[in-house]
Formats: sequence, structure tokens, C-alpha cells
Amino acid sequence: MYLAGPEVFLPSALEILALKSDILRCAGYEPVAPLDNHIEPQGSRHAMGMAIYRSNIALMDSCEAVIANLTPFRGVGADPGTAFELGYMTALGRRALAYTNIAVSHAARSCNWYRGEARLDEAGELRGPDGLSIENFDMTDNLMLAGAAEVMGAPIVARQAPVGKLYTDLRAFHDCVLML
Amino acid sequence: MYLAGPEVFLPSALEILALKSDILRCAGYEPVAPLDNHIEPQGSRHAMGMAIYRSNIALMDSCEAVIANLTPFRGVGADPGTAFELGYMTALGRRALAYTNIAVSHAARSCNWYRGEARLDEAGELRGPDGLSIENFDMTDNLMLAGAAEVMGAPIVARQAPVGKLYTDLRAFHDCVLML
Repeated sequence: MYLAGPEVFLPSALEILALKSDILRCAGYEPVAPLDNHIEPQGSRHAMGMAIYRSNIALMDSCEAVIANLTPFRGVGADPGTAFELGYMTALGRRALAYTNIAVSHAARSCNWYRGEARLDEAGELRGPDGLSIENFDMTDNLMLAGAAEVMGAPIVARQAPVGKLYTDLRAFHDCVLML
Repeated sequence: MYLAGPEVFLPSALEILALKSDILRCAGYEPVAPLDNHIEPQGSRHAMGMAIYRSNIALMDSCEAVIANLTPFRGVGADPGTAFELGYMTALGRRALAYTNIAVSHAARSCNWYRGEARLDEAGELRGPDGLSIENFDMTDNLMLAGAAEVMGAPIVARQAPVGKLYTDLRAFHDCVLML
């Protein structure tokens, strides 16, 4: 089971991934996390980034399923790296579960992004002042992510994390494991 | 050639996709865009989102390659839907080119997101006040996106669009077509 999510960026990344791994093992699954491979020092930052990319691809290839943490990351939507990984596993036909620790719809988060300045256009479509339309399909994130989760596993689990625990609260993750 | 990118959210989406398609046809490629399929009305917004998802998956499956517009979208990184599609095409082993209309590195954009409040931690890692580390691999976006482009096609093309043309400037897109 591949653990995709932006918790790799936390100071407590290893701790959180160990907790997630323990929960999975208790349920009878073998966890695989992006930081599992040891990566040798490389000649440059760029080369290190490429080595991590190749390592993560190999880790995903070795997995039968993914649980993706789609909690919004530095913006309205999911971490693009996690979104990429969900797309990758979807194309491989692997089972995919997903969750988010913000229980506010994609449309509402997009409206918040524009601080109340989103407006209906003449065609009845909601748009930000930058002209970009706001997806409104009663979904938790972009329809490609929500669609993939629903088709490859189950609808995205959304649970509001307590203040200060946006990336560390594991209740929605645990719900995903229970659904397996 | 699948055209992935957030320009589908523009009021001028059809116009931009038609321009991109013309550029591709001139270069001898058959363009396929997310809005190409006619989708019958569905019983609910959610059902419509799912129908669009299935349509886009089928369109990607029909393509030999993708050009992904990774211009930041409502946040620091690429549109998560586009990131998903790049991951999907990567897993299928299809050729992937990518571009962005913001010529500022991922690390610098992340620092801007924190309005100067990012700091080095005791381990020498740059972190925002929320504790999240800032990837610093001399890359244009998250290493999964930058890595995929580099391995499956060519490094992400980054060109700064003129003011007001963030999602409509096609020079970087054109560079991708020239690289094919």
C-alpha cells in the first residue's frame, strides 16, 4: 500500500509515516512510503530530485494500492505531487483510496480563495476575478481526483481536522483503511 | 496529443484550445482536448463530474503523448487535475512534455507563499511557519512533475508570460511543440 501525501514535508514526517504504517500493518497491509528508499548523495540538488522521483516511481510500481492524502497544500487544491501519484496509480489500474482533512467542498474553497469576489457570469458559471471558472460538481477536489478515487476505490473521505493538526490528524486516513 | 491544463477554466477555453490544436496540427500532430467529447446532461452535478472524468480518461487512453500546462493554479503549484493527468500518462509510458508560464522556481514561489516567513530549521532545511519544508531541487514544480517531464519527454519549459496572459500566452507551449 503506497502512502501518498504532503506529510513528507512535515518536520515529523517519519513519525507520521510510521504511525500510518502501523495502522496499515494492524489491518494486514504492507505499507510503502515515499521516504522508504535510501537514496545515495547525488552531484547536485537537481540530480537528487531526479533520484527521489525514480525511487518513488519504483515504490509505486511495487504497490497494489494507494491511499492519497488530498488535504489542500499551499493553495486551494491537493499537493500536485500527490495528485500526480494518484493519477499514476489510476493508470496502472491499482486500487485507490483518498482522504482530506478539510471538510469544505472544492467549490467553497475556491470561493474563499477569491475572498468573496467570485461572481456568476452571463452563462451562469461561477468565476473568480481572474476569469477562471470554479468547478461545482459537489466534489471534494478537482473532478479528476474525486473521479479517480470514486472509480478506483471509494469517494474521497473528508473530515475536518482539529486546529493545528491539518496534516497530522489520521482519523480520515483510518477511515480509508477501514474501507479497504 | 492530449492537451492538459487549467485553460479549460478560462472564459476563452474553447478559443485557446483551438489555437493550441492549430499549432499542433501545423506540426503534424492530432490534438485531443478535455472538452472534445460531448457529454450528455446527467441527473446531478456529481454525476456530470463523474461523466467528465470518464470522458477525460478515455481521451487520455486514446493519446500517444501529452503536453501539460503546469502554470501555477490557485496556489504555489500546478493545477492538481493537470498533475493527475501527467501522472496518468506517465504510468501509461506515454511521451510527456510540460510547460509553465511562470519563470520562477518552485522553491522561490513557495517562499513567496509564506511572505518572507520561511526559515532554515536546525537541520538546515527551509520551512514555512506551518512547519512544511520547501522542496529545493532546482526544479520548476514538485519533483514528481518535474521528474516525469524530464524522464518522459524533456525538462519543463518555463517562460514568464506577459501581465494578464498567465493562462493564454502560448510561447512556452509552442516551445514544447518544437521539441517534439
